[in-house]
Amino acid sequence: MDRKNYKIKDIAAMAGVSVGTVDRVLHNRGDVSEKSRKKVEQVLEKILYRPNLLVSSIGVKRKITLAIVLPSHQQGEYWEQIEKGIHQALYDFSKIRTETKTFYYDQFDLYSCRTAYSQALEYACDAMIIGPTFREETVFFSRKLDEQGTPYVFIDTLIPSCNQRAFFGPDSRMLGYIEAKLLSDVIGEEKDIAILHAVRSGNESSLQTVVRKAGFFEYFDTVSSKNRFLYANYYSQDVEQSWKEFDRLFSGENDIGGAVLFNSRSYIFASYLEHHGITGVKVIGCGVTQKNIEYLKKGYLSFLLSERPDVQGYQSIKYVLEYILYGQHEQIIKHTPIEILIRENIDSLF
Amino acid sequence: MDRKNYKIKDIAAMAGVSVGTVDRVLHNRGDVSEKSRKKVEQVLEKILYRPNLLVSSIGVKRKITLAIVLPSHQQGEYWEQIEKGIHQALYDFSKIRTETKTFYYDQFDLYSCRTAYSQALEYACDAMIIGPTFREETVFFSRKLDEQGTPYVFIDTLIPSCNQRAFFGPDSRMLGYIEAKLLSDVIGEEKDIAILHAVRSGNESSLQTVVRKAGFFEYFDTVSSKNRFLYANYYSQDVEQSWKEFDRLFSGENDIGGAVLFNSRSYIFASYLEHHGITGVKVIGCGVTQKNIEYLKKGYLSFLLSERPDVQGYQSIKYVLEYILYGQHEQIIKHTPIEILIRENIDSLF
Repeated sequence: MDRKNYKIKDIAAMAGVSVGTVDRVLHNRGDVSEKSRKKVEQVLEKILYRPNLLVSSIGVKRKITLAIVLPSHQQGEYWEQIEKGIHQALYDFSKIRTETKTFYYDQFDLYSCRTAYSQALEYACDAMIIGPTFREETVFFSRKLDEQGTPYVFIDTLIPSCNQRAFFGPDSRMLGYIEAKLLSDVIGEEKDIAILHAVRSGNESSLQTVVRKAGFFEYFDTVSSKNRFLYANYYSQDVEQSWKEFDRLFSGENDIGGAVLFNSRSYIFASYLEHHGITGVKVIGCGVTQKNIEYLKKGYLSFLLSERPDVQGYQSIKYVLEYILYGQHEQIIKHTPIEILIRENIDSLF
Repeated sequence: MDRKNYKIKDIAAMAGVSVGTVDRVLHNRGDVSEKSRKKVEQVLEKILYRPNLLVSSIGVKRKITLAIVLPSHQQGEYWEQIEKGIHQALYDFSKIRTETKTFYYDQFDLYSCRTAYSQALEYACDAMIIGPTFREETVFFSRKLDEQGTPYVFIDTLIPSCNQRAFFGPDSRMLGYIEAKLLSDVIGEEKDIAILHAVRSGNESSLQTVVRKAGFFEYFDTVSSKNRFLYANYYSQDVEQSWKEFDRLFSGENDIGGAVLFNSRSYIFASYLEHHGITGVKVIGCGVTQKNIEYLKKGYLSFLLSERPDVQGYQSIKYVLEYILYGQHEQIIKHTPIEILIRENIDSLF
């Protein structure tokens, strides 16, 4: 188990080529003859070489510049954890000199996003990491990045028909499917299920919500339950209006046994349950935010799914550094973990 | 976000002391006056210094020697993942020259464990990592390590009344509690629950199983369900005998709706269900082994709890390296994550 750390000159000697040649192969730059490349690659394979950003016996002299475009956020919210993962990776790989600049936008305001995108476009960088919300706007922006030749990576939400180098985020369809499975398992086949929909003003539903909802109903299509589905809207900024909608759910003949939400605002429904002293409704949502954790611990949420935003942030930085330093040419789509959280295991996970 | 990497000479200059003094404070060795130590510590606090094994701008010249004592294992078994975490940490921290020697024992054979312990005791090392099974034997061994002055760390199972520097493993009581909670939620209040007990020959139950079972019943003490509990033994090496026991469970008036196992051999019960075409029994177990994953995917296990053996292995190496290089004097007990796995999220987690 005692490993040998091969240095670039060891590899050069073993391959019978110059140090410069090994360097060019490893860092994927400059001209190398097919014959020399093969020799080096054979040695790398033999010694099970994999580039290690953490050790990097191959010195990195240059400075890498990254632009990051993200929704702005409050403390304890979902995107804060994405940034935490980003910071952790920059810390772990701080042997590599990296400069980052972050451009924030209001995820409920298309014009704010447009401004952030224009500013990011002006910033000369080696690569860009984007947490997108608005589909059309992002497609348009990505075309400009393609023209510039700036490589970019998406996190959290995959926007189709872009040329991103990589994507790190949960499988949204599967996330909705798991929400359905767990809810169905714990409420049985008779009760009504409330589907709660976040209303955004001025634009369509987020792409992610649409896909999660599809995954949710895909599960119920496979089981022959008698559950009825009831729908209600809610509004991030308008509690009064949301609660009116919830009042309607609990009126009349309805027998609500469970409820599902597809974004990180489950606490809005949970606070309604708490205020009205309603127990016995199993609620499942996603997003391990401070407020959601609070209601999970109080028992007003039964399950939370975590999309591991920290992992998304960490992996995106690791990927772009490897991409820039070592070159990785396949486009990758990496689905990050979907964790199931209940009151009893959440403390062990954070 | 662009961080400065402080070198030891920067810290010395800021504190107005010699490089040697900073080195002694950081590595917790040699004599340093109280006054100088304070000066250095103030600077470290100001620059938010934390020792970073990954970067280590403070060079590590010495070689660190570690002994590791673990149960032997087959491919795809629980302890293989502990070793995977150990290897990953050694790789990530390969800037630090580390030599490890692993001593294996048969976890079902006390004498084999005794032999491994004696051999490890002869091996001169800076620290030891122990995955214990036998309580008395381990207490006895730990006394000898105390006499030698060898620091040691437990993983997986905490043995009470030892002077370990640290423990990395799941909270066993909570693990049993979560098994009960999930099982209870999905089978309802009427069905019978099978409690499956692993028989070990020649020695008492493992300490871990006892604690997990206690956690399991602690949950049922808090709910007023009508579930009946039925007990059966099983034998790792004797399928025929195990299946006889299971036949008894499914005979007569019994109405088995769920089953629980407390170690990583859930597949033994699952294979019985598969062979007899029994569906509709919700089984919960722990240990993300190849065989368990196979039966989770086939639907014969409903839930698996993962004790994250990879995290246990990784953290134990990271801890001992930090302990040896930087000195950390509080004894720590770090409960590793308890993850809830179902067929639908397992692929995203591995």
